[in-house]
Amino acid sequence: MIRVTIWNEFRHEKKREDVKAVYPDGIHAALARGLAADDLQIRTVTLDDPGQGLTDEVLDSTDVLIWWAHAAHKEVTDENVSRIVAKVQTGMGLIVLHSGHYSKLFKAVCGTSCSLKWRESGERERVWCIEPFHPIAQGVPETFVVPQTEMYGERFDIPGDARVIFMSWYEGGEVFRSGITLERGYGKIFYFSPGHETFPIYYQPEVLKVIGNGIRWAAPLCRGVISAPKVENLEPFRNQK
Amino acid sequence: MIRVTIWNEFRHEKKREDVKAVYPDGIHAALARGLAADDLQIRTVTLDDPGQGLTDEVLDSTDVLIWWAHAAHKEVTDENVSRIVAKVQTGMGLIVLHSGHYSKLFKAVCGTSCSLKWRESGERERVWCIEPFHPIAQGVPETFVVPQTEMYGERFDIPGDARVIFMSWYEGGEVFRSGITLERGYGKIFYFSPGHETFPIYYQPEVLKVIGNGIRWAAPLCRGVISAPKVENLEPFRNQK
Amino acid sequence: MIRVTIWNEFRHEKKREDVKAVYPDGIHAALARGLAADDLQIRTVTLDDPGQGLTDEVLDSTDVLIWWAHAAHKEVTDENVSRIVAKVQTGMGLIVLHSGHYSKLFKAVCGTSCSLKWRESGERERVWCIEPFHPIAQGVPETFVVPQTEMYGERFDIPGDARVIFMSWYEGGEVFRSGITLERGYGKIFYFSPGHETFPIYYQPEVLKVIGNGIRWAAPLCRGVISAPKVENLEPFRNQK
Amino acid sequence: MIRVTIWNEFRHEKKREDVKAVYPDGIHAALARGLAADDLQIRTVTLDDPGQGLTDEVLDSTDVLIWWAHAAHKEVTDENVSRIVAKVQTGMGLIVLHSGHYSKLFKAVCGTSCSLKWRESGERERVWCIEPFHPIAQGVPETFVVPQTEMYGERFDIPGDARVIFMSWYEGGEVFRSGITLERGYGKIFYFSPGHETFPIYYQPEVLKVIGNGIRWAAPLCRGVISAPKVENLEPFRNQK
Repeated sequence: MIRVTIWNEFRHEKKREDVKAVYPDGIHAALARGLAADDLQIRTVTLDDPGQGLTDEVLDSTDVLIWWAHAAHKEVTDENVSRIVAKVQTGMGLIVLHSGHYSKLFKAVCGTSCSLKWRESGERERVWCIEPFHPIAQGVPETFVVPQTEMYGERFDIPGDARVIFMSWYEGGEVFRSGITLERGYGKIFYFSPGHETFPIYYQPEVLKVIGNGIRWAAPLCRGVISAPKVENLEPFRNQK
Repeated sequence: MIRVTIWNEFRHEKKREDVKAVYPDGIHAALARGLAADDLQIRTVTLDDPGQGLTDEVLDSTDVLIWWAHAAHKEVTDENVSRIVAKVQTGMGLIVLHSGHYSKLFKAVCGTSCSLKWRESGERERVWCIEPFHPIAQGVPETFVVPQTEMYGERFDIPGDARVIFMSWYEGGEVFRSGITLERGYGKIFYFSPGHETFPIYYQPEVLKVIGNGIRWAAPLCRGVISAPKVENLEPFRNQK
Repeated sequence: MIRVTIWNEFRHEKKREDVKAVYPDGIHAALARGLAADDLQIRTVTLDDPGQGLTDEVLDSTDVLIWWAHAAHKEVTDENVSRIVAKVQTGMGLIVLHSGHYSKLFKAVCGTSCSLKWRESGERERVWCIEPFHPIAQGVPETFVVPQTEMYGERFDIPGDARVIFMSWYEGGEVFRSGITLERGYGKIFYFSPGHETFPIYYQPEVLKVIGNGIRWAAPLCRGVISAPKVENLEPFRNQK
Repeated sequence: MIRVTIWNEFRHEKKREDVKAVYPDGIHAALARGLAADDLQIRTVTLDDPGQGLTDEVLDSTDVLIWWAHAAHKEVTDENVSRIVAKVQTGMGLIVLHSGHYSKLFKAVCGTSCSLKWRESGERERVWCIEPFHPIAQGVPETFVVPQTEMYGERFDIPGDARVIFMSWYEGGEVFRSGITLERGYGKIFYFSPGHETFPIYYQPEVLKVIGNGIRWAAPLCRGVISAPKVENLEPFRNQK
């Protein structure tokens, strides 16, 4: 059983009618319903929960954290970002969705600015799976269409070890590395860009399939600790003067 | 002319006699003298300088920043770390030396914990160059010995895109990826572990040669900006509903 | 002075009127004219030259080899492929263009099948530079259009260390990693897909700029040898039983 | 059930008494016994078998191929090498052991010369696991000793996407990337250097544990085909002139 925590900023859905119309209970609730499966134990938390939804109790019982955020990146405390990063480095899986690319959290694990181009156009996006043998690609079609999307375009400023699983084509002429994996210490990270607060992308079966695969891939095989131990020599010294 | 700024914590050298004996004017001064060359314009700054030695004036006129730190990692402000990281992402080169591996700065560009094993033993280290064709390796022997060193051993928790240029063998049985490069946006980063406050390693010609090569390699070809621009479509929409 | 050898299959241009109309003297001649510069010493050879244009004399005096081939991949002898691969591994730069992706040579340095999707449609291609700080990108616009192209689409079966410098968008819905670098031993390799025998792509300034940059990037810094030497121990044995 | 085929050159063991003394039934037989497990269906073949032990029947029923070779690399036909490479690219796992680093097969999947330094000294090797979270590392100690080994030293000429799981320290002063993974198309590859014909390394529990983990990791999740299909456009043309 993989313990999944879906963290949602959950502000748009309370304030804007156009968002509420698509995700009346919040994006976290839509994701929780769409991802429900026998091997997943799913919980949702939001920014306005106690401790920003990120208490020790929550993080200590999470195998994979899903992150959706957009307008309130700055409100997440630096301390909470550091706590999550440490959890990732010791094994917790992390799935960052869409506008989460510009969260403090994603920038912190990348070490890059994570900047990109964007356009809220409702144009057509075509997603291509370029690594069909990867666990995240199993059961996902080689290509599928998101009928209306927010465009995210290159250059996407991510580190060189980002492994590209999905690439996107946009009607307006851009391309994007729309599904990438990273590893940081014991932790696996998957970023997937399709998804937006005013388009019903998180109801689309292919998108849910990808995120679900991402969860299973990112679930930790084992956990580590962060330490910088002083150690004794294992082989005897001889050359030392 | 490459504008080099050597940043040194410069605390050990003022407080400890054993350090002062090796680096009486500070590690920064020894490096500045050892690296002096016609194509380098070298300046030194230290933690106790105004603005921690990291004013806009300094950073804006730096092509490559060299970082030596050990005991006072925590004193460097988060704001200064963020400012340096942004400079790196937009093109400033960064050379991180020895115990700088555990600085906030190096952790921030790596996204990993940067932990390792260590032993202050004065044992023998043998450095191997494993990428003889890399610019940083030019003129450096295939292998050379650091007679007395602080051991740094694996696992070194660094990201997967760290390119290994040097590997070290230690008398006590450990191995280490002792010279690695990273890229973050427009900026190039080189980490090199040989060097310590109580051993005269920064007087060793091979070590100075490596660091000098690192400076020339990390000097920016061009500079970028960090932005996340909203853009117009370049190809006309048609499929959009 | 970089010694460049442009190798062209040169069959299409002799047999097909539609190709002759675009490249009357052969693609190699068009490239040689388009790439001419003071720092390049350019020579052209073709498949039907003595020794397939790949004599020791030619290879020994080449710093960077440009490879254009399409219909006669199989005619290049295995022995010649092995000779070129060895030259690359010891430092000769290699630029593989367009349909050269399916040459024995490119497959040999990749270790993968190098397969892709294609369509000879004359559709519009938009090329994006995603690593603006890379030497190959200097002076190249962030995006440019190839008005009529042969589509090459993902999945492009290349190895994981292919560094993506350019990505392409096609009118028909595909995306492609259209400019990638690889390193094999001392040798640097650049693959660039834009270019075709029936479209005047090799007269396009942006395309020539990219290839020219590729040549300068791939020119060897130093040369190596391939050997598997038996060596003496550098540190004395003690633990041995 | 993973179908494992152990391919052994099996020449040393028939000709040399010192080898026969250690592996009286051949290295393949020792490996087959040491790796036996409920989830593995293990078969052994040798170079002198019909079709060099590499018939279609064998390859078509193999999930993971283990390769041990040393003195007869040249005798394996180019055609058989190509057939195995194609199988790997479409999903068959491959484990290359010790001196197999210089086989045509390993060079073909690497695209590099795979050269290294060596010394048949019987010296002490200390193996370090540097990616403890990797599937191949599960249950393997952080470090273990091979009491008597053939030294393999850097530079090991392998491609940049080689992921280093194990690094070795040698008494005589060398270091080595002794356990690496690669991916080629649908196929996973693991190279592990410990093991030799005159030392009883393939009886050592840690070594067998690593190889067994390698088999489970390299077993294909799915299989692909190699094709370069001509395809129709998915999005309508409009810009085309």
